Amino acid sequence: MSHKITIYDIAKKLNITAATVSRALNNNAKISEKTRILVQETAAKMNYKQNKLAQALKSGKSYNVGVIVPRIDSNFFASIIRGIEEELYSQGYHVIICQTYNNEQMEIENINTLLNAQVDGILMSISNVSIEKNASFNRLLAKNIPLLFFDRKKNIEGVSSITVNDFEAGYKATQHLIDEGCKRIAHLSNDRLFEIFKDRFLGYKQALIDNGIQFDENLVIEIKSNIEEGRKATKKLLSMKNPPDAIFSSSDWSALGAVQELKSQGIKIPEECCVVGFSNEPFTEFMELSITSIDQFPLEMGKQAAKVFLEQVNNGAHITTEKKIVLTPKLHIRKSSSRRDALNKK
Amino acid sequence: MSHKITIYDIAKKLNITAATVSRALNNNAKISEKTRILVQETAAKMNYKQNKLAQALKSGKSYNVGVIVPRIDSNFFASIIRGIEEELYSQGYHVIICQTYNNEQMEIENINTLLNAQVDGILMSISNVSIEKNASFNRLLAKNIPLLFFDRKKNIEGVSSITVNDFEAGYKATQHLIDEGCKRIAHLSNDRLFEIFKDRFLGYKQALIDNGIQFDENLVIEIKSNIEEGRKATKKLLSMKNPPDAIFSSSDWSALGAVQELKSQGIKIPEECCVVGFSNEPFTEFMELSITSIDQFPLEMGKQAAKVFLEQVNNGAHITTEKKIVLTPKLHIRKSSSRRDALNKK
Repeated sequence: MSHKITIYDIAKKLNITAATVSRALNNNAKISEKTRILVQETAAKMNYKQNKLAQALKSGKSYNVGVIVPRIDSNFFASIIRGIEEELYSQGYHVIICQTYNNEQMEIENINTLLNAQVDGILMSISNVSIEKNASFNRLLAKNIPLLFFDRKKNIEGVSSITVNDFEAGYKATQHLIDEGCKRIAHLSNDRLFEIFKDRFLGYKQALIDNGIQFDENLVIEIKSNIEEGRKATKKLLSMKNPPDAIFSSSDWSALGAVQELKSQGIKIPEECCVVGFSNEPFTEFMELSITSIDQFPLEMGKQAAKVFLEQVNNGAHITTEKKIVLTPKLHIRKSSSRRDALNKK
Repeated sequence: MSHKITIYDIAKKLNITAATVSRALNNNAKISEKTRILVQETAAKMNYKQNKLAQALKSGKSYNVGVIVPRIDSNFFASIIRGIEEELYSQGYHVIICQTYNNEQMEIENINTLLNAQVDGILMSISNVSIEKNASFNRLLAKNIPLLFFDRKKNIEGVSSITVNDFEAGYKATQHLIDEGCKRIAHLSNDRLFEIFKDRFLGYKQALIDNGIQFDENLVIEIKSNIEEGRKATKKLLSMKNPPDAIFSSSDWSALGAVQELKSQGIKIPEECCVVGFSNEPFTEFMELSITSIDQFPLEMGKQAAKVFLEQVNNGAHITTEKKIVLTPKLHIRKSSSRRDALNKK
């Protein structure tokens, strides 16, 4: 007669204790990699099924993880979330998502919502830049609930983060435009109280300086990351006495707005004005006039965030692991900035 | 000395009972619209703040609502979710989101995850088409937790749904292509066990019949809704002895794949082959060769779903409200199918 396989059956088969089996199945850091794999493989072969509810009751864990993003409808954040889910799902965790619409109050409420939903940890990209509004984060930390930032982060002691090197990204994009022969490069930025936008700006500025090009603050416009604001800012830039010959935008959406405005004014891209975006949203590649953009490897960012979270919960709360993982960005050069190619063809 | 405003202060001011104030603040259906508005406006003027936690404890409600979608990274589902949040937020509810990646097992697990997170209701678009897999839905209903479907629905007694008229959408798209002079119209479908894809197909077929065009099942290909499968299916269609002069796709992503494949084979759009997509994703409008598509009014769909949910929770579980709301789709005609215009210009 077949019966339901328990950890005791696995322990007997491997001649180890049930406690060791339990720890191995729960990825406890005290168990060696070798034992963990042996136990998990044996459990799989014996068709062992963990009783999730019993496990949750015993461990006090819900196996739910909360993810908070400014908005879900970008490929960038959706890919991060996919990376997180791919990594966590195999470990028995489920992901629940909240969005803030870039609103600080919503962010605070989302944290409360996820706490009420009994999540085991929160992985998030912040919408809240004011220093005085750290109360929610501190509440989480006081409760020993792991908190991790990805992309838009704050520097808080004990909180790990996974970001891309935004300074390098801004530098690379600007250097590329200079290499293409551009001399008056404008920058569409966003709220620089966010580190990511500040760093992209600083990378842009440094590249200008390193190439002996004078920085002109009139060429930097701070806007929200959307098509409409990209169009408006570009209109403003084009109305200058000495308009730019390139636009580096810290968002693909405002870059698209720039492309639309340039086209509507009959300005040739890339011959008369180059455009570079940021985030490598799929549309930048599949448009007829493909847009050069920065790849931030969001899937990888999500996976790394999940891995750091797992390390934290498995190590136990007594070990402080503050990791700062910084990924290297990649510039995808496309038609919107391939000026030398375009000019050579003529 | 100022003190914290309570419902007793509001009751005193309006000369009504505290119970009435409480009911009015919680949108109880027993309270008249007039009283509800009066109480809520007075509460706002007096700067009354509801104690959420106390309220939750008292009512046994979490004020969290779960939303499950196949995937978050489409404008369509993101807009539905925005509609839901806009409508529910003002009523004190917070939304937590799960995605299934079109996987039935994930759908079942998501329902459990949301139940463990103590949601007051679940609004979802299904990934699960097999009839025998209704156990999770039935579990929800047995617990008197409101369940609502939007877009991808199942017909389950007592479950309301908000959809667009997919038959009409398929019919309109096809009629438009016929009006543009197309005679061999192919259809990129998806799994027709889903009502939405079946209805789009049936609308397409009926339009052909009504216009005296013979239906040819070789021109219907069932694929997943993505660029790659759209390209492949189009390649297959173009290799036919008698290739189509139009493609109606039940997804914008496969329509984009069709556009890419047609272009790569040097076939002129719309002159030699028209393309119509479905969902009105933003890229269909902003591409140079803009793509004709069907607007399903996702924001409105989300708002309606939220309203039906609120009716259900406010009416109390004893009243069965099974609503089937069907929105009217709109065809946005763009370059990819404006054949007569294109031919007239020559």
